[in-house]
Amino acid sequence: MKKLSDKSAMALAIKEAQKGIGFVSPNPPVGCVILNKNREFLSSGFYSHYGAIHAEMMALNKIKDKKQLEKAHLFVTLEPCFHFGQNPPCVDHLIKYSWASLTYGVADPNPKTNKKSIKKLKSKGFKLKKSIYFKESLHRLYEAFALNMKKNQTFFALKIASSLDGVVAFNHGESQWITGLKARNLAHQLRSGFSAILIGVNTFLQDNPRLNCRIKSKKSIQNKVIILDPFGYSFSLIERSHLARVRSIKDIYIVSQKKPKKPHKFQHIYSKKSPFDLKALGKTLYNNNIPSVLVEGGADTLTQFLKQKIASRLYYFINPCLLGGEKALFWTEKLNIENLKSKKYLKSLEILDNGEDIFITGLIF
Amino acid sequence: MKKLSDKSAMALAIKEAQKGIGFVSPNPPVGCVILNKNREFLSSGFYSHYGAIHAEMMALNKIKDKKQLEKAHLFVTLEPCFHFGQNPPCVDHLIKYSWASLTYGVADPNPKTNKKSIKKLKSKGFKLKKSIYFKESLHRLYEAFALNMKKNQTFFALKIASSLDGVVAFNHGESQWITGLKARNLAHQLRSGFSAILIGVNTFLQDNPRLNCRIKSKKSIQNKVIILDPFGYSFSLIERSHLARVRSIKDIYIVSQKKPKKPHKFQHIYSKKSPFDLKALGKTLYNNNIPSVLVEGGADTLTQFLKQKIASRLYYFINPCLLGGEKALFWTEKLNIENLKSKKYLKSLEILDNGEDIFITGLIF
Repeated sequence: MKKLSDKSAMALAIKEAQKGIGFVSPNPPVGCVILNKNREFLSSGFYSHYGAIHAEMMALNKIKDKKQLEKAHLFVTLEPCFHFGQNPPCVDHLIKYSWASLTYGVADPNPKTNKKSIKKLKSKGFKLKKSIYFKESLHRLYEAFALNMKKNQTFFALKIASSLDGVVAFNHGESQWITGLKARNLAHQLRSGFSAILIGVNTFLQDNPRLNCRIKSKKSIQNKVIILDPFGYSFSLIERSHLARVRSIKDIYIVSQKKPKKPHKFQHIYSKKSPFDLKALGKTLYNNNIPSVLVEGGADTLTQFLKQKIASRLYYFINPCLLGGEKALFWTEKLNIENLKSKKYLKSLEILDNGEDIFITGLIF
Repeated sequence: MKKLSDKSAMALAIKEAQKGIGFVSPNPPVGCVILNKNREFLSSGFYSHYGAIHAEMMALNKIKDKKQLEKAHLFVTLEPCFHFGQNPPCVDHLIKYSWASLTYGVADPNPKTNKKSIKKLKSKGFKLKKSIYFKESLHRLYEAFALNMKKNQTFFALKIASSLDGVVAFNHGESQWITGLKARNLAHQLRSGFSAILIGVNTFLQDNPRLNCRIKSKKSIQNKVIILDPFGYSFSLIERSHLARVRSIKDIYIVSQKKPKKPHKFQHIYSKKSPFDLKALGKTLYNNNIPSVLVEGGADTLTQFLKQKIASRLYYFINPCLLGGEKALFWTEKLNIENLKSKKYLKSLEILDNGEDIFITGLIF
């Protein structure tokens, strides 16, 4: 049987974790891989839905002959849990075996566990390692949860699709399908990782979008939707919209300065100021059990998130074409950067995919 | 000894070819790799400078014991030459040996050879293969030469460096160093592949650039410079410019509607219309022994090349930052694309490098 390197084993564990994306919220996804003493694959597991058994336990349970675990190697994307939640602590299970090595991806940002399991395993004499591979991918798996734990606030990421020269539309209205089919599939994949999708009211009115996740393996995911709508233009339209056709009306949140006068089934969040205080909105959404939000536009909405410095990550689809000219709308043209010094910039840049389009991501600073 | 796959051997041949870039013009660079019958490396060669022996011959000459060539494998980036030039035809040398296989990258666009050597080798019963690997890299090696042969015209490529949102400068003048150090080194590498660098007069006046190739292995290259300068503002300044400090003044071409009144040492190209007819300029430059030109800006100059559909390739350095706002200059803002249908687009897209910046290239359509 093939021997797996540390890198291959962690890559597999990350793939396992990704299976849970969209189903485990507000908990984070976790994946686990176990190799025998000869580094041959024994089993894998993942956290499949909120309340399910943990990834490590799923992987352990698959191994009937526990003798195979002698001097085995375990890889898990997140530090094993230390506390009693819906499951007993994984760390107490793990210490029953004679692991040759235990490799974790990221320390658990949850203060109930944070580094306590690491300490416990070390104190018991286990060879404990933090993965040196896939730093960016592992960070992406847990960044929303980490921000949730640290700031009791919703994690915001921005998604934009433009031409190579930053054009998102023309002033005569044409804007659809700037990016290709593969990019649109990736965009659906991306949606599966967020509790809600946020748009401005103009995007709602112009596009009447669905904003759901239309890929097979994730189509049971019911993501919520948030509309920033200062004057409540969407109040009377929302029930007959495409948004309400593909999800429960109770999963649609409208944020406005104006209060709805008629009885309504959508969720309403009142906010006095406009442009809205997005940090305050982040707190409110978090308290409404929406730990992560993908902001999908339009340009004015994205600009507000950049200006208020409240978005953590940018996902950028670039179609390699040029669309500039007098009729072009450049998506950052209202960002009001005054000079090079005050630029917004991306760190931990990754090229996630490239084919017809280029798909990049990075942390926003 | 290590056996080399077709892919590795062609990769090595391309690397060999690249050694000649900047020294072989107006001929194209060529690289060659020879493996013995067990696919172990025997020798390599490249076309080192105009008039030198050909890559295949350099590789053959390195092998003293010609018995090693029995059932050997040869890889060459370009179809071996068929005609008597400064060297006798390589194809006649090659047929003396009992090759197990002969793999070429690209058919020679030179009508004196074009596919004639391929036919000859096939007719002699050799196993002849066109490389299925590195199609884009091989195309890039020969695209300028192919256009030269086909249209008797100079090959133009555009180079631009901007922020992620297409900003190249601010309207208060700040523009330098939008991209990082590594990108600037890559830009110098890029220059080595072109006979001349072209700029508009505003770039000359504002930046007083040098536009030479400042990397060690290529620093002996003396690229020419072309300035598009309708009113001849540069006439009186050129002799004391940085451009003239790092190259002979005779290698500087100024294109203008106005004729210089005083005696001058720079080259002058008269052109009646402004904006200049760039296709006509391409013919003139080709007749002046300038087969390839890298257009380095500014935005207005690049825009002219895009509008007149005369540039074949775009090299794009993207610094992952956002600089949009009222003070931003977007490099395509005068491109006058009216709708999605009339977009310019890139094909055969390649990500050449990514680190601090993203460096992409593609063919312009």
